[in-house]
Amino acid sequence: MMRVGVLASGGGSNFQALVEALNAERSAAQVVVLVCNVPGAKAIERAKAAGVAVEVIEHGRFGKDRAAFDAALVEALKQHRVELVCLAGFMRLVGQTLLSAFPQRVLNIHPALLPAFPGMHAQQQAVSYGVKVSGVTVHLVDEGTDTGPVVAQTAVPVLDDDDEQALASRILVEEHRIYPEVVKLFAAGKVKVEGRTVRISR
Amino acid sequence: MMRVGVLASGGGSNFQALVEALNAERSAAQVVVLVCNVPGAKAIERAKAAGVAVEVIEHGRFGKDRAAFDAALVEALKQHRVELVCLAGFMRLVGQTLLSAFPQRVLNIHPALLPAFPGMHAQQQAVSYGVKVSGVTVHLVDEGTDTGPVVAQTAVPVLDDDDEQALASRILVEEHRIYPEVVKLFAAGKVKVEGRTVRISR
Repeated sequence: MMRVGVLASGGGSNFQALVEALNAERSAAQVVVLVCNVPGAKAIERAKAAGVAVEVIEHGRFGKDRAAFDAALVEALKQHRVELVCLAGFMRLVGQTLLSAFPQRVLNIHPALLPAFPGMHAQQQAVSYGVKVSGVTVHLVDEGTDTGPVVAQTAVPVLDDDDEQALASRILVEEHRIYPEVVKLFAAGKVKVEGRTVRISR
Repeated sequence: MMRVGVLASGGGSNFQALVEALNAERSAAQVVVLVCNVPGAKAIERAKAAGVAVEVIEHGRFGKDRAAFDAALVEALKQHRVELVCLAGFMRLVGQTLLSAFPQRVLNIHPALLPAFPGMHAQQQAVSYGVKVSGVTVHLVDEGTDTGPVVAQTAVPVLDDDDEQALASRILVEEHRIYPEVVKLFAAGKVKVEGRTVRISR
């Protein structure tokens, strides 16, 4: 069984989707801990309700020392013997300290078809640009912003009258579907990373 | 009937797709001329076989005077009373002279989901990046490179073993489908441009 740690800062709907899809008996992957940098975030409530361990690590405590914050994240994840790390609305950049502790085992989900619309407010960026197709990307995290190798993508239509909220809701449905799917592929040993190319054996 | 002019430099498979989809009796749009900047291009052969008028305008004749080249294009298009201009593998940037002669009536087709992978070799860019979804974009042309308002997009899957050629072929099928469809929407008066947003009334 692959032990999954989720890092979230906010509502935690992707955390919830991962827990619901994975935390069944004899599942090949299971969410064992939520690490949250924002006390009072709704994700914490969700974790408690689901019986998942919670570690709160406030980034403010570390000032500008990002490596120390990263080290604290790593320590918490290692304590829970995490093998795969899923960022799910985690509003801090993670650095080399965390990445080298979990080589090719830190995932992020982004609400656009990267490399289109990286960074914040991807759905609003898509609406403002006027694209007709956007989507969702699960990628391995590297030190850039949303630049790591792509593991999976799903296209989502943008409708003429979409505002940011309407598009975000449509994309979120796919996020909740695709993220657990990717975690299961990792747990099944079906993901191979070759440079920027990620191959899935089916 | 909306009179369509196609600008091409090469093989002209999109020209051919437009002719085949549009040049039927009582069609709402019809390709009336191929303008080509490369003597001997295969597109010219195709036009002759299809009974479509051809104008060859070699860009080399104009040296670095892009406005003069543009003016010659406009003259040829106006001679054929063209109302809608479709770039289809036209390997020259078009400038303000052409754009203001056909305001919001110059289209281009690009083999990627813009704003991802603009410019040359979009399919190779997609393969190199390692995306799982690419596609095709039909957009209004502005003075940037592949930056104009998006009229239509279709997603196309990228498979693990795709090389540039395999992906290009899969995208080309969608190009041949989507480009005539967009021209028909213009001919039917169903396309409304509001800033960067292009609305299609169905």
